[in-house]
Amino acid sequence: MKSILIKNILLDHKPQDVLIEGNRFTRIGENIDSPADLLIDGRDKALIPPFYNAHTHAAMSLLRGCAEDMPLTEWLQDKIWPLEAKMQAEDLYAGARLAILEMIKSGTVFFSDMYFNVPVTIRAVEEMGIRAAIGVTFLESNGSKYVERGLRFLENLPETSSRVQITITPHAVYTVSADLFKRLAAIARERSLIIHTHLAETRQEVQDCIAAHDMSPVRWLDHLGLLGPDTVAAHVIHADDYELDLLRDRGVWLVHNPCSNMKLGSGVFRSAEIIEKKLNIALGTDGCSSNNNLDMREEMKIAALLAKVHYGSEVLKVDEVFRWATLNGARAYGLDAGEIAQGKLADALIINLNDVRMLPCYDLLSNWVYSADSSCIDSVICDGKFLMQGGKVPGEELIKEAAKKAASRLATKNNQN
Amino acid sequence: MKSILIKNILLDHKPQDVLIEGNRFTRIGENIDSPADLLIDGRDKALIPPFYNAHTHAAMSLLRGCAEDMPLTEWLQDKIWPLEAKMQAEDLYAGARLAILEMIKSGTVFFSDMYFNVPVTIRAVEEMGIRAAIGVTFLESNGSKYVERGLRFLENLPETSSRVQITITPHAVYTVSADLFKRLAAIARERSLIIHTHLAETRQEVQDCIAAHDMSPVRWLDHLGLLGPDTVAAHVIHADDYELDLLRDRGVWLVHNPCSNMKLGSGVFRSAEIIEKKLNIALGTDGCSSNNNLDMREEMKIAALLAKVHYGSEVLKVDEVFRWATLNGARAYGLDAGEIAQGKLADALIINLNDVRMLPCYDLLSNWVYSADSSCIDSVICDGKFLMQGGKVPGEELIKEAAKKAASRLATKNNQN
Repeated sequence: MKSILIKNILLDHKPQDVLIEGNRFTRIGENIDSPADLLIDGRDKALIPPFYNAHTHAAMSLLRGCAEDMPLTEWLQDKIWPLEAKMQAEDLYAGARLAILEMIKSGTVFFSDMYFNVPVTIRAVEEMGIRAAIGVTFLESNGSKYVERGLRFLENLPETSSRVQITITPHAVYTVSADLFKRLAAIARERSLIIHTHLAETRQEVQDCIAAHDMSPVRWLDHLGLLGPDTVAAHVIHADDYELDLLRDRGVWLVHNPCSNMKLGSGVFRSAEIIEKKLNIALGTDGCSSNNNLDMREEMKIAALLAKVHYGSEVLKVDEVFRWATLNGARAYGLDAGEIAQGKLADALIINLNDVRMLPCYDLLSNWVYSADSSCIDSVICDGKFLMQGGKVPGEELIKEAAKKAASRLATKNNQN
Repeated sequence: MKSILIKNILLDHKPQDVLIEGNRFTRIGENIDSPADLLIDGRDKALIPPFYNAHTHAAMSLLRGCAEDMPLTEWLQDKIWPLEAKMQAEDLYAGARLAILEMIKSGTVFFSDMYFNVPVTIRAVEEMGIRAAIGVTFLESNGSKYVERGLRFLENLPETSSRVQITITPHAVYTVSADLFKRLAAIARERSLIIHTHLAETRQEVQDCIAAHDMSPVRWLDHLGLLGPDTVAAHVIHADDYELDLLRDRGVWLVHNPCSNMKLGSGVFRSAEIIEKKLNIALGTDGCSSNNNLDMREEMKIAALLAKVHYGSEVLKVDEVFRWATLNGARAYGLDAGEIAQGKLADALIINLNDVRMLPCYDLLSNWVYSADSSCIDSVICDGKFLMQGGKVPGEELIKEAAKKAASRLATKNNQN
């Protein structure tokens, strides 16, 4: 069991020592002098919880910037889906690794993924030391063979480390039938897996769902028995007051993805009502092709700004949006993490307090949410291990080279059609 | 005359060589082999225009994060103005240098400043090699002695390098009288100085102006003869269609400050109409106490996202918002810069194409606007000189130490009251 002792680091407004043994914080306080395998000087640095990205599509990093200035439906159908159809396992692996590298460098230690080819994503996550909830995705438009393959995968889940959990990710009400939704809900409850889906993202989705089922997407999923504390619903922009109450009463976790919602013109998340009604809420970046990065720090700032311009400057305060991006993301996926406290899983960021963007320091969190960027992150700790130390992630150059090759394969295939 | 030759750098979608002699780009093309004082290898890098921040209050960097989650009027009156009243010349100097350091590190080579104590700001700008339009600020609430001092300053402008211009910055319609506005407009036209003011930032400002003068702020300033192509108006959120047409017809330069407007809940800038009506428009960060940084890259992304969530995903395209932040900022202040072209002032950024956030590269500008952050900037060139090279700004540590001391002086003074 490896141990790390961090001395004199700013934590909860004062310099403290932090001992990590194995994958947990075991002691926090002043003058800790246990022997440790690794001793870190924390002066001029702060220790803060890292990010838990509650909704993304990791390997879409390979599609970064491939299509701009389009609404969601057109963007998906004309640009994204045709490119995705060309992606092979090696592309998805290279894309997932590129995404994980970007996440580590911007302070994220966990992501909830909804994409294709679970085995290669598991492999990338295991190799790179990050945590993930990896979704087995169901889109019926991809064909019944594809659905059958997903169901078979769920019957015989692979062995993984404790950093990896498998989730069930039906894509959305417009791509998954009532029967399949019900079947997936039953499997999820039987095997204690989280269900993670897109919900009420666009007006079009709401209109189409009402036309097809005489119910809005939120009511439709409730009708199908999908909504519970083990459900994570991404976006949830177009929900009325009754539906917000219903989502709260069912204990559903909402995931706000402000950059994606704004960029695709999907609509304005109802932050003020969601805070007032005390819904479960976390933050996500969505896939970086609609963002176009996986930077949760930027996502916090933009979530707060969007809430303020719509509801007033006092809505979505610094500590609140920080909690959405950290502790709440961990809670949504059942992780005993997201706080720097004795006994919790040892995930943390070491922030450079001497970075120009962190000066002066009236309020560390305010600087972190509104002023910092990834250049202020010195180190990233996940599960008791350094994923980045002093700005360096081992193997970075190989990951980038492989991603460049995969992207150029995709571009070539695309030009041939 | 110093010269710099950059070889094989990505520019306009192909590798090119760029020669800088003195403070201008003198040759751009393939296979340039002039002798040069400095030879730069541009492989795996791109050369792009840097940022021109068209509205800020530089030394407010010292107030970063000192007050959060408040509307503009309360924020100004209860928090900002009392702290500003305590700032001495040495604080303003330290704050301006901190701001300039942050701007250089995030790719900005010019800022238009509206703040106090012009001589210390000039000193900071001259020393650090950036460009600036430095405003002589008028707020009548500060007393007639203060106004007289500003007017005397304008009568006898100091000698500066070509990187510095002096502007006249009446604060706003609610802090400057009709007489003073008219007097300042006359001085500006007589001496060919730009007038830079806040305009139509909040609903309150509009209501109060109508109550006082029976005219909205835009109409009131036009009535006073303020509006022309030498006028830069920051914010301009609450303007009706007639007023937008008027501002266009007068050739006024608008400055959009999305972070500040969102954070203070001031309102939504009318991007779609302003593009459609073809107004002159540039981008600014506002003071970093309402942002809370001076990062124009982030400002571009947020400007685009705000426009898209309000007007649709096709509004404010990548190349458009990039132009607002670069060429248009230079044009607003009469600088022969903002483009990398033969004969133009030699201002540029060297971007690291191998940064994880810049991969893959389907579209360089899309990556730059939506995905990058300051960590992707390798070097910053202003007026033919490197202000930052390989991420290093000379003197950085001293600037940060001085800012920390100034902030702790201010905090102490504040606690004593």
